[in-house]
Amino acid sequence: MMAVFPKVIQDLIDSLRRLPGIGPKSAEKLAFYLLRMPQAFLTDFSVSIAELKKRVNYCEVCKNATDQTVCRICEDAGRNKSLVMVVEEPMDVVAFERMGKFKGTYHVLHGRISPLENIGPDELFINELLNRVKGRESGRVEEVIIATNPTMEGEATALYLNKKIKELNAKVKMTRLGMGIPTGADLDYADDMTLTQALEGRRDT
Amino acid sequence: MMAVFPKVIQDLIDSLRRLPGIGPKSAEKLAFYLLRMPQAFLTDFSVSIAELKKRVNYCEVCKNATDQTVCRICEDAGRNKSLVMVVEEPMDVVAFERMGKFKGTYHVLHGRISPLENIGPDELFINELLNRVKGRESGRVEEVIIATNPTMEGEATALYLNKKIKELNAKVKMTRLGMGIPTGADLDYADDMTLTQALEGRRDT
Repeated sequence: MMAVFPKVIQDLIDSLRRLPGIGPKSAEKLAFYLLRMPQAFLTDFSVSIAELKKRVNYCEVCKNATDQTVCRICEDAGRNKSLVMVVEEPMDVVAFERMGKFKGTYHVLHGRISPLENIGPDELFINELLNRVKGRESGRVEEVIIATNPTMEGEATALYLNKKIKELNAKVKMTRLGMGIPTGADLDYADDMTLTQALEGRRDT
Repeated sequence: MMAVFPKVIQDLIDSLRRLPGIGPKSAEKLAFYLLRMPQAFLTDFSVSIAELKKRVNYCEVCKNATDQTVCRICEDAGRNKSLVMVVEEPMDVVAFERMGKFKGTYHVLHGRISPLENIGPDELFINELLNRVKGRESGRVEEVIIATNPTMEGEATALYLNKKIKELNAKVKMTRLGMGIPTGADLDYADDMTLTQALEGRRDT
């Protein structure tokens, strides 16, 4: 096929195609959509992309994405620093903050242990978590809630963290998010594992 | 909810959300995905976006997106300039060029007549098409293939073009793309309109 796209459009399509969930067809559609957007929008959009990594770093304490040295949550005197919820991604923090009921702090691993993707413990912020629990870098941690995803990799990561934190002999309480039927779900659509965990995690009424 | 996103991430999410097919959740996911991409990729991506409208203009002849004064197709001596296929969007040109069998030229309207979206004939490159047919700006046009989409707006646009071109008395042949069952389709899944058009457009074998 003859090159019908001007180079700048082709470059844009190539970039868009590297994003998750954007196939060749949507990349083309997006590129032509952008061509009709006002230049002011394109300028803002391009600045956000170019400056993204320069303006964002990881919080010294919890490793969440922030534009400060210590993030807004970690610097908030109203948050319970002795309670640390360990999550895989910054998006998980957003989910809990949206809920608005958790008043502790977070620790963002930035991934999960995944031998298939060549991600071992050293690729994650696990040592930083262990240092927090040892109490070297901030106040005493009394409880660590492990809130990795209930996937194979998330569970493996949880097990690894459990083992490592126990080895510290730091007398820290370790918990895991409750598992079971999600609100609004249809019981007969739940998978066996979810049902098993709902049964094991049953509570007195 | 407390602002957990650094401003540059929130700006990026806001820009991404304005793109078609990207909801609030995917915008957040994409923003954090971009945060992990190499800076070299982000730089290239942002340059393509910032420069897009500056480096792309419309071909003087056919109004397709190009980085030249006259696009590669219109300047190609091997293409039949007397045959003009009228399409709604640059993406339609790509579809026909991918097929590779059309050796005429195009005319890109950049939209369709749509009263609901406040798009009338003056918002499209219709006068430019009429001028081409009148033979003022390029060689004599012998056939105009109207290849707008088979939607309500596309059909209305086709009717309008038909009327306007006939008014020119330019003795130009006017054709419309063949309608009917698409290759590989299941007859019993075809809608009534498609079946009607397939029947009306039946050919001798």
